Amino acid sequence: MTRSPIAVVLVSMVALATALICAVGAHAAGELPSWNDGKAKQAVVGFVAKVTEQGSPDFVPVPERIAVFDNDGTLWAEQPLYFQLYFAIDRVKALRPRHPEWQDKEPFTALLRGDLETVLAGGEHSLLKIIAATHANLTTDEFEGIVKNWLATAKHPTTGRPYTQMAYQPMLEVLTYLRANGFKTFIVSGGGIEFMRAFAEQVYGIPPEQVIGSSGKLRFEVRDGKPVLAKLPELDFNDDKDGKPIAIQKFIGRRPIAAFGNSDGDLQMLQWTTAGRGARFALYVRHTDAEREWAYDRRSSIGRLDKGLTEARARGWTVVSMKEDWKTVFTPPSR
Amino acid sequence: MTRSPIAVVLVSMVALATALICAVGAHAAGELPSWNDGKAKQAVVGFVAKVTEQGSPDFVPVPERIAVFDNDGTLWAEQPLYFQLYFAIDRVKALRPRHPEWQDKEPFTALLRGDLETVLAGGEHSLLKIIAATHANLTTDEFEGIVKNWLATAKHPTTGRPYTQMAYQPMLEVLTYLRANGFKTFIVSGGGIEFMRAFAEQVYGIPPEQVIGSSGKLRFEVRDGKPVLAKLPELDFNDDKDGKPIAIQKFIGRRPIAAFGNSDGDLQMLQWTTAGRGARFALYVRHTDAEREWAYDRRSSIGRLDKGLTEARARGWTVVSMKEDWKTVFTPPSR
Repeated sequence: MTRSPIAVVLVSMVALATALICAVGAHAAGELPSWNDGKAKQAVVGFVAKVTEQGSPDFVPVPERIAVFDNDGTLWAEQPLYFQLYFAIDRVKALRPRHPEWQDKEPFTALLRGDLETVLAGGEHSLLKIIAATHANLTTDEFEGIVKNWLATAKHPTTGRPYTQMAYQPMLEVLTYLRANGFKTFIVSGGGIEFMRAFAEQVYGIPPEQVIGSSGKLRFEVRDGKPVLAKLPELDFNDDKDGKPIAIQKFIGRRPIAAFGNSDGDLQMLQWTTAGRGARFALYVRHTDAEREWAYDRRSSIGRLDKGLTEARARGWTVVSMKEDWKTVFTPPSR
Repeated sequence: MTRSPIAVVLVSMVALATALICAVGAHAAGELPSWNDGKAKQAVVGFVAKVTEQGSPDFVPVPERIAVFDNDGTLWAEQPLYFQLYFAIDRVKALRPRHPEWQDKEPFTALLRGDLETVLAGGEHSLLKIIAATHANLTTDEFEGIVKNWLATAKHPTTGRPYTQMAYQPMLEVLTYLRANGFKTFIVSGGGIEFMRAFAEQVYGIPPEQVIGSSGKLRFEVRDGKPVLAKLPELDFNDDKDGKPIAIQKFIGRRPIAAFGNSDGDLQMLQWTTAGRGARFALYVRHTDAEREWAYDRRSSIGRLDKGLTEARARGWTVVSMKEDWKTVFTPPSR
C-alpha cells in the first residue's frame, strides 16, 4: 500500500493526537500532585472522568462544562480578614491627608488607630462604608491600577507573603485540570468584581469575563474629553448567598455542573448547581489546618461553614479537609 | 541526516499547521462572501489583519481580542417592531383567558384588538408593562422553554420567515471571521438577556455567557423542594445607551477593541470602545435597503440612527450601507 505524503502527515497527526489524549486520560490523577490520595481527590477525578468520557451515560458536551468557584477561602485565604479589607485599610491610610473629617468619624477613626475589633463590631454596614469611601469616585481604569500596585507591594500581616502567593496550590491544580478537560472555569464570589479581576488572570488563569463578584454602581461620563466609567459609592449587587445563583444566571446563563465553595455563603450556589439534571459535583473546602493555614468552621465570623457542612454531609457532597487532603497549602513563591 | 519517527511527526505537524494558518491568512477576505468589495469590507479585513499580524505595531494578544455586537438591527432585523415584542404580544394572547382584567386595562386592551399604534404611543412605559406581565413569575427554565417553542413556530408578519432566519448573513460571516482570527464575540443589546440566550448559540454561535442584555430582577426560591430562579416583574438593568459601556465593564471587565451597532443606542458603546489605546474599530450598519429589508435612520422610532451617524462621519467610523455593501441580506432558509 502506498500513501501520499499528506496522508502520512494526517495519519501521523491523528496517531500523535490520540497518544496525547490517552496520555492526558491516563495521567489525569497525576495532575493533582498536591493532593493526597483519598476520597476527596478520587471524587474530583471520578467526576471529571465520567462527564468527559465519550459514550458514558454521564457525558457532558464541552460547552456545558461550566465550573464555578468561590474565591475567599476557596481559591485563596481569607484570614484574619478578607484581603480586600486590608486593601481598603491601606487606602484609608493613604487617603487620610485628604479626609480630615475621618478623625472623628467611625468606622474611620477606629480603623486609623488600628482598632479592627471596633471596625468589625460595626458589621457589614461599617465594611461597606469603608469600601465605598475607598473604592468610589475613581474611574475603573484608575482603580485597576491602584489594586495592581497594592498587590505588587503589600504583604499579608501574619505570613509576610504577597497576597497573590496565598492562593491554594491544590485548587490551582483543580482549575488547570478542569480546563485541560474542556471545562470553562468561573469565579463567583462575594468579593469585589474589579478587585478580583486585577489578579485573577495572572494568578488563576481566569480572564476578567469569567470573574463574577459584588459590584458598585458605575456612571458613564466624559472627563477631559474622554469617556470614562466612574465608580459610585453605592452597592449595585451583593454576590453572596441567594445572590450567587442569581449572578450565575445573569452572567453565565446556564447552570454549572460543578461548584466549589467553603462557606455558608456558597450554599445556594451548591444547591443550584446540584439541582440540575445529570451528573453534578459540589465540593466544600474545610479549613482544618491550624498549623499551615487556619482552622475554623461553624462559629467563625469570616467564612462560617455551618449549615453548609450539615447539608454537605446529608447529601454526600465532597468535603475537603485541608489538613488531611492537601500535601501543600499555598503556592510556592515565584522568583 | 536521520530523524526519529517522533521528530518526523512533529515536523510534519508543524508544517501542516503552518500551511493551515497561512491558508487562513491568505483567504481571509474570501470568508466574507456576502459582502461586496468596497470600503466597508476593506475596513473590516484591514483591521483584523493589523491586529492579528505578529510584529505589527497594532498587534493585539488573543485574550484582548474582544468584539461586541448590538443585536436588534445589527445581527438580525428589528422592523416593523422589535421581535421580542411580537413574542410578548403572542404571550398576551395566550395568557388572555387567565387575565380577564386585561379587557379594560391599557396597554393590553389595545394590544388585544390589534391596535399596535396605541400600544406604541404609550412609549417605553407601555412596553415594559407588557414585557413584565408576560415574562415575569415564570422560572428561568420555564421561560427558556417558552421562547424556544415560540421561535420554532412563529413567523415574521411581513416576510413570513421564522425570526431566526432574519439574521443578517453578512454579519454571521463577520462573527465567524472574527472568531477564526482569535476574537471572542459578545452580544451587548437592549434586548432581553434571557430571550436572546434562547437562540444566540444556535443562530450566531455565541454561547449564553457571552450574551449581555437588559434584564429583570430574579429571586432564588424553593418550589416543590427544588431551588428555582423566579423572574420578577421589575427591571433590573436597561442595557441601552450609557448602559452599554457599563454592561461591558460589568460583564466583560475589559474594553473591546471592536464594536458593531446600528443605532444611537449603540453610540456610547462605540465611543467607549474607540477611546481605548491602540487600534480600535467601530462600525455602524445603516438600513438603506427598502427593497430587501427596510430603509430608516435619523427619524425612525425604532433603531434611530441620528447622532451616531453624525459622529461616525466626523470620526471616520465604518458605515455599512446594506444596499451597497451586502450581496445578500438574510440567512438562507435551512432545510
